[in-house]
Amino acid sequence: MASVEEPLNRLSALEITQGIAQGRFTAEAVTKACLARIEAREATLGAWAHLDAEAALTRARALDLGPIRGPLHGVPVGIKDVFDTFDMPTEMGSPIYAGHRPASDASVVAVLRAAGAVILGKTVTAEFAGVFPGKTTNPFDAARTPGGSSSGSAAAVADAMVPVALGTQTGGSILRPASFCGIVGFKPSFGAISRVGLKIAAETLDTVGVLARGIDDAALLTDVFTGQALAVGGACAHAPAIGLCRTFLWDHAGAESVAAVEGAAARLKEAGAGLAEVDMPEAFAALSGARDTINAYERARAMAFEWHHHRHDISDKLATIIEEGLATSFESYMGAITIAEGLRAGLDELFGANDVLLAPCVPGAAPEGLDSTGDPALQGLWTILHVPAITLPTHRTGGGLPVGIQLIGRPRDDQRLLSAARWVAARAGAR
Amino acid sequence: MASVEEPLNRLSALEITQGIAQGRFTAEAVTKACLARIEAREATLGAWAHLDAEAALTRARALDLGPIRGPLHGVPVGIKDVFDTFDMPTEMGSPIYAGHRPASDASVVAVLRAAGAVILGKTVTAEFAGVFPGKTTNPFDAARTPGGSSSGSAAAVADAMVPVALGTQTGGSILRPASFCGIVGFKPSFGAISRVGLKIAAETLDTVGVLARGIDDAALLTDVFTGQALAVGGACAHAPAIGLCRTFLWDHAGAESVAAVEGAAARLKEAGAGLAEVDMPEAFAALSGARDTINAYERARAMAFEWHHHRHDISDKLATIIEEGLATSFESYMGAITIAEGLRAGLDELFGANDVLLAPCVPGAAPEGLDSTGDPALQGLWTILHVPAITLPTHRTGGGLPVGIQLIGRPRDDQRLLSAARWVAARAGAR
Repeated sequence: MASVEEPLNRLSALEITQGIAQGRFTAEAVTKACLARIEAREATLGAWAHLDAEAALTRARALDLGPIRGPLHGVPVGIKDVFDTFDMPTEMGSPIYAGHRPASDASVVAVLRAAGAVILGKTVTAEFAGVFPGKTTNPFDAARTPGGSSSGSAAAVADAMVPVALGTQTGGSILRPASFCGIVGFKPSFGAISRVGLKIAAETLDTVGVLARGIDDAALLTDVFTGQALAVGGACAHAPAIGLCRTFLWDHAGAESVAAVEGAAARLKEAGAGLAEVDMPEAFAALSGARDTINAYERARAMAFEWHHHRHDISDKLATIIEEGLATSFESYMGAITIAEGLRAGLDELFGANDVLLAPCVPGAAPEGLDSTGDPALQGLWTILHVPAITLPTHRTGGGLPVGIQLIGRPRDDQRLLSAARWVAARAGAR
Repeated sequence: MASVEEPLNRLSALEITQGIAQGRFTAEAVTKACLARIEAREATLGAWAHLDAEAALTRARALDLGPIRGPLHGVPVGIKDVFDTFDMPTEMGSPIYAGHRPASDASVVAVLRAAGAVILGKTVTAEFAGVFPGKTTNPFDAARTPGGSSSGSAAAVADAMVPVALGTQTGGSILRPASFCGIVGFKPSFGAISRVGLKIAAETLDTVGVLARGIDDAALLTDVFTGQALAVGGACAHAPAIGLCRTFLWDHAGAESVAAVEGAAARLKEAGAGLAEVDMPEAFAALSGARDTINAYERARAMAFEWHHHRHDISDKLATIIEEGLATSFESYMGAITIAEGLRAGLDELFGANDVLLAPCVPGAAPEGLDSTGDPALQGLWTILHVPAITLPTHRTGGGLPVGIQLIGRPRDDQRLLSAARWVAARAGAR
């Protein structure tokens, strides 16, 4: 529980709901604290595509007047601007949708409201959750990318503008910005959270997830969406069996990331975890190409309207991917789908007796510059496999920049992943 | 090719594109013929939720002035009113969305336009592609249901208002109305056609497909969406191996449907098809319950906004399913998903050496009354298995009402299904 001195905008979602339930502070006070932080930092960070302070305060005051609405009563949330909201613009990081007002809420937004959350606003996304960046900067260094495409969600959570925010991951759009911004990014199993009302980038890949400062908050939101009981699980009673899986993309991991992963493995072993090396069979090396093929083919179709009616308002980066997708044959696409399905069927064998895999998340700290959101390869590998994945902010570079590690769960075993993650988070970090 | 006497509204999509390319008639003339048919019959049929004759004619005239735009140049198409259209209302069969105007086209709509199609209007859907019927009647008997949820698409195609129309199937929403209205209904493999811009009913089940008067037209549209080469395939050179699969739901098939399936099997065998009986292992009997569980759980989430903001405008029938879904635990849902995945993995074995399966499609002819769209069990069984399925209008009852048979393809083998279907369609019907 927060001390009296802890500013309300730094509390976790769980602490906020508990504090409000106990009458120690109001939803209005929490919302005000978040808005004050935004007021102070938004000019530098640019995390928000749309913010309606008055509407948020009105909502918070209404919550304070009534009974506890649900498990997120009074929790401010940021919504990546690819989810429809009936009362706020949904612009998807594209001039094509400037000022666009959907008629309804995306499923997750409606569920958040019903659970008592205060939707603060929409967070900046890369153009259509793709590769062309928005305006957001990294909270640790405004000259660096926050990562993407869930850029605003990651930056806002990291900077204590909001305790939790929604993201989506087609390649590495939740875990990469979380790692670059030093927070937790959780991509549940593919299909666990409804995508209704989300502007789909690639149907076979898009996964809804959560950016938070702690594992419990990521679990809490996932619970609310799915009805799982992830939040109450707590850490493993006993040390988990961890497979160190450097993957065929180990050469994408720079010195900082190698140090984080190898350092974490050493410390976890010392702390009593089972620690085995897991070699990825060579066949998995086809995954990166397969992900690119699927991404391009599906995106080209997902963007058919924008392509035919607003081509001049699509970035060159995205246009290149759409053109690639239009040039991809159905046979190549099906080939990629078949590769992915075949490798998914081999996951039990890959995991062996391990509860989770430990793998590199990113090449290193957030790179300098705002023109690119960084390299999605190390995260995207697991996205196409549909397994749950989480990044933990366990490490820092010499310069103080965050570098996360990645833990991957067995197919559909989000519960086991989160409980192992709690155990790992307490032990894996550099001392 | 149509004779001079054949009215243009009775031509197939393929005939229309050929006739226009050969300069034998114009897109405008085709559109006018379709509009005249609608004018004559719409008061009885109620197939259209929205029709814009002037816009369609303007579009057709514009096409006539330019070069051939694509493989559907000048083809009038009806769009089930669950797909977004930027220039027409999208009401989803619900008062909640009366007059609703989306900002963009669904992927399939944009692709149709780019291929040169003339979007005539939006066809009536059951409420949110579910069970509560719209206003449409059966073209064979206005006192009978056209089936649902793609009611307007099936009736409009059957009545020669339009050569082809889009549908979606979550349970049996393409094949059942096609069978009741005496046309072809094709549900391709799950995932083959983009769902972006479709109001999703249940993410794990929803499949986009086509209603047409012939197999070639169904193949042509699927080609346009996916880039497959289904239309050029033609019929199998040799007789296909057909597995007669009565399924564990054989008691859902009434006398008319039993006669159609058994009659088709006898005639196909006589014509030289391999004809083997395929017994479904008992485990498949879990599919109906699993489909209901998945449907309810996912629909409840898909409808979160409407449930929380417009509950009084949701029909009691749909409300019951949403309540069921909200009461379904994540564990039950995952159990149903696991059952479905396990049985999908057993499909190769079920098919054995057969190219396709022959199965009952419906209990019988369209039932009397407009309060229900009929029983989805016999179609829904295959929807959850994600296999391609097609109904062919091969049979009539003594009273002249259509009863379709159902052919099911091997996983992702839409090509083989359609080429077997061409062979079957020419031989299976009652003489």
